[in-house]
Amino acid sequence: MNTLTDLEISKKLKDYPDWEFYDNALHTDFEFDNFKDCMSAMNRIAFECEVLNHHPEWTNIYNTLDIKLTTHDKGGVTELDFKLVDAIRKIVEVEE
Amino acid sequence: MNTLTDLEISKKLKDYPDWEFYDNALHTDFEFDNFKDCMSAMNRIAFECEVLNHHPEWTNIYNTLDIKLTTHDKGGVTELDFKLVDAIRKIVEVEE
Amino acid sequence: MNTLTDLEISKKLKDYPDWEFYDNALHTDFEFDNFKDCMSAMNRIAFECEVLNHHPEWTNIYNTLDIKLTTHDKGGVTELDFKLVDAIRKIVEVEE
Amino acid sequence: MNTLTDLEISKKLKDYPDWEFYDNALHTDFEFDNFKDCMSAMNRIAFECEVLNHHPEWTNIYNTLDIKLTTHDKGGVTELDFKLVDAIRKIVEVEE
Repeated sequence: MNTLTDLEISKKLKDYPDWEFYDNALHTDFEFDNFKDCMSAMNRIAFECEVLNHHPEWTNIYNTLDIKLTTHDKGGVTELDFKLVDAIRKIVEVEE
Repeated sequence: MNTLTDLEISKKLKDYPDWEFYDNALHTDFEFDNFKDCMSAMNRIAFECEVLNHHPEWTNIYNTLDIKLTTHDKGGVTELDFKLVDAIRKIVEVEE
Repeated sequence: MNTLTDLEISKKLKDYPDWEFYDNALHTDFEFDNFKDCMSAMNRIAFECEVLNHHPEWTNIYNTLDIKLTTHDKGGVTELDFKLVDAIRKIVEVEE
Repeated sequence: MNTLTDLEISKKLKDYPDWEFYDNALHTDFEFDNFKDCMSAMNRIAFECEVLNHHPEWTNIYNTLDIKLTTHDKGGVTELDFKLVDAIRKIVEVEE
């Protein structure tokens, strides 16, 4: 699996308005109703991380969750990151 | 509940060698065997956060967990932060 | 807090079509898309159990969850059980 | 993968004193310090269930957890059940 080019990433991100690409990684942040909802979402996402064997760098502060995705051993964003984005979006059910 | 002075915090931290005080907050980082163990620890700690109604700023990357504790509405470290430190230590079972 | 009478429980259950009363307890069962969704729902409900300090007897088999609620130390169904029912329904988002 | 014979199961269970075989399934029950510890253990075990794609029938009441393992589509106990037993024991850290 190769890293995606900036152009490929830009094209893909048109379908993912909640995600941005910078610093060689995909980024988003979510705001939940409360801490409990946020922890439950993280817990549910964690199952998908194990399925994909791909893990985020994520920071929780109370009801907010910042997520950064990159494929460390490839040195950039790959299809694997977009697979995890898809799994996360399905769980958090972003409506656009 | 007032913020603790730097001197009070320094004295207390003698009993907590895994924690440091800087940038107006208590900090530590843990390394677990794997992502699953880390998520489970976060999940278990989350219960105690709700009990104390006090929540960390924490970042997980695979098997590592960075925790930062401060009492935002007091503008510094208070006894509440040390209560959460105690709860976290009990769960992660730091042996010294 | 007293136990509710059979009549009181019957009246209340008109608003809770997914719940039944028998054997001195409230009962329901949920079916989720998969095991992971079921475990996440249990985890989210667990936070509310701690808030209420009231806990279910519940059985999980793959994607199914059977829940039984009663107030043991009162010997029957009380308002506390209905509070937990409300919390559970909010999480599982039963649409009727 | 075939079901194990009663003799094979009996032999294996000598190394698992906390588990019993009856009704065509392996059974155990755990008692934790509190509900939160029990839920965290279930949550941690759930990850291993997904890894093995094998799931228990388990009942939680406050700090207790009853676990029943069988391989439904084979009609009995198989090596897969013992793999999940091993994973569970490692998490709950049974000392004998």
